[in-house]
This record gives sequence, structure tokens and C-alpha cells, in this order.
Amino acid sequence: MDIIDKLPTIKKLIRQLQQVPFLASKNMYKVLAHFLKLDQRKTEQLCAVLKEVKQEVVLCQHCFSWKERAQQCLLCDDSNRDASLICVVETWQDLLVVERTENYRGLYHVLGGVICPLDGIGPNDLTIDSLLHRAATKSVKEVILAMNYTPEGEATAAFIARRLEDKGVLISSLAKGVPIGSNLEFVDRLTIGKAISDRKPF
Amino acid sequence: MDIIDKLPTIKKLIRQLQQVPFLASKNMYKVLAHFLKLDQRKTEQLCAVLKEVKQEVVLCQHCFSWKERAQQCLLCDDSNRDASLICVVETWQDLLVVERTENYRGLYHVLGGVICPLDGIGPNDLTIDSLLHRAATKSVKEVILAMNYTPEGEATAAFIARRLEDKGVLISSLAKGVPIGSNLEFVDRLTIGKAISDRKPF
Repeated sequence: MDIIDKLPTIKKLIRQLQQVPFLASKNMYKVLAHFLKLDQRKTEQLCAVLKEVKQEVVLCQHCFSWKERAQQCLLCDDSNRDASLICVVETWQDLLVVERTENYRGLYHVLGGVICPLDGIGPNDLTIDSLLHRAATKSVKEVILAMNYTPEGEATAAFIARRLEDKGVLISSLAKGVPIGSNLEFVDRLTIGKAISDRKPF
Repeated sequence: MDIIDKLPTIKKLIRQLQQVPFLASKNMYKVLAHFLKLDQRKTEQLCAVLKEVKQEVVLCQHCFSWKERAQQCLLCDDSNRDASLICVVETWQDLLVVERTENYRGLYHVLGGVICPLDGIGPNDLTIDSLLHRAATKSVKEVILAMNYTPEGEATAAFIARRLEDKGVLISSLAKGVPIGSNLEFVDRLTIGKAISDRKPF
């Protein structure tokens, strides 16, 4: 029997930490040791911040990115952004990635995941209906589908594209091809194939 | 300017998470998204457990492993364990690793780190004095130095070995050599060299 099983309070904390994604089991014990060592004051600070986050951070009911309750949405309500463009991403993390390219000044729409029947996630679990609503407004001219290049991402993009067909907007998706800085020798066959069929005039 | 910098409450949570070790920056945003999505009740559960841990989990003043306040030390106070042996480890996680081999039934001593002048950690920041005290009691016959096989670990082991010299105990360390299941072709040169000079009769 593992020694941890005889330490009920520590076991409780492990159960809490196990719910946090991406704490691989080796690292989990380092994180556990961190919280065991953390002093009372710091623990209280962390809890206060977690509670404040629950209170103060809400989803924008337009684009479904996180916003501060006291603020307007930094994206939807920024008049400097191009409201004719909506970039659809799977998660808020993906939104941050696109935003950090500093190459996009349109609006966003966070789906909240991808359609994945195996995980029990259907179109109604995502914010697709809201997207269709937004796309139907006159100001929107183009919807960029920026899902991950995975089977689920592609399937979700295809589903959304079909639903958008009659909305009178241009539907586009990210270019697929050879990543910058890559050596052809080490790029997979399918990507090279895609890059050849999607080739552009030099 | 990054969008995160304009979201003060989220920024506060990031600062908290940045103090947790082994949340590499890519994963950090996934963990952040986890806490943003976590519902109120679950957040309160986590905070309650963290507070309970502060209250109920203390260091054993003998071996410096974590124990429940309400319990005896599962290691020091277990009369089935061999009190003539003390295995010295750097951290509590290392103790768990040794314990899980189910190949050791002696006592432990957790140092709380290694001597590392660059990080400002000297012998007095570790539990070395307590170890010397324990080693001086009659019942102790052998001290096993089970530090990591790193420059700091080796230096700390050498320091402790020197301080233990006059205590009349046998000082030993973990065998160093080729790990089980390894292919010699992929084992580093120094390990092979060590394994040759430490070779044993077949």
C-alpha cells in the first residue's frame, strides 16, 4: 500500500490537483510539494485570487472570450478593430496565439471546443448558433475558420462552413503548408502534398 | 501590448500560477483556462483543501517528511521498520520514490534540498544538523546517502559523509551504473565508465 494512501489530507490535495490538466504524474508531485511548502499567507493569496477570478472574469456574450466584468470586451468593443472580419477559434488560448501574431485586427469568435461525438460534444455544446447570428449581421463580410488542423478541427470547420453558406459572407481558412523555418526533409508527407496542391505564384 | 496585460484579474491569476513550478509557459495557459472555467463550487473546494493542508499537514520533526498532524509519523513511528538504517534523500518526492521500490524498510531523513552556493543554499539551510544528531544515537548503524547523481547532490553527499566520519556509523551510497533495461549503445560514456570501475563479480 502506497504511503500516500495513509495521509488523508495530502490525498485530498492530490485529488484536487489531478483535476488540473497537464500536470503529468511526475510533475504532479513537484506541484504537490510546492503547495505543501507554500506558507499560509501565500495560500490565502492564491485562494483570494481564485475567488476574485470567479467574481470578476466573465465570458463576453458576443465573442465568448474572457473579459473583466468591469470592462467592456477588449475585442468586440474596440472601435479600432475591423468589425467586418470574424476569426473563429476553438479556444481562448488559440485566440491569444492569433492575437500575438499582431497580424490580425478583426474580431473573434471562440467556439469553446470542437465537435467530437466520441467525447459527447455536439454542435449545440459549442457557440455555433451565436456565430451564425453574428455572421448574419450586415457588417460582417468574412469569417475566417482558424480551427486546429486536426480531424475534429477540420470536421468542425466543414460543419460551420455549410451552415454559413446562405449567410452571404466570404468563408476562408488558414493557409496550410510548409511552416516557416522548416527543412523539407523533416516535414511530413501530407503537409508537403498539401503545400504542392495549394502552391502560389512566386 | 499583450491583451493579457489589459485584463488585471486574469493577470493576477497568472502571477499566482507562475509561482507554481513545472507549469511550462505553454501549459500555463491551459491551466489558466482550467481555473477560469472551474465553477464556483469547485474553486471553493480547492481552496478549502489548500487551507486544510496548511492546518493538518506538518513536517515530522525527526525525519522531516510530511505527516498528518493527527497521526504519528508513518515512517519514524512504525516499529516494523529497521531503525538502524537511515536513508538520506534530498526531497520528500525522492522519499516516495525509494519507498515505492518496496525494497527498503529502514528510516528516512529528508534534507530539504542540496548545498548550492549559487542559489544561496548552505548546509544550515538543510536538516544536516538533525541528521548528525540522529546518526549519533546508538541504534543507528548505517546511513545511506541517496542524493541525486548530480554535481550538487554529490557535493552534498561528500559534505555529509565528512561530518558523519566520527559518528561510528557505516556510510553508504546508491550503486551507480547501467540502469536496468538499458541498451549500452545509448548509455552515456561517464555511466559506462563508472559501471566498469564499480564492476562486481558475476
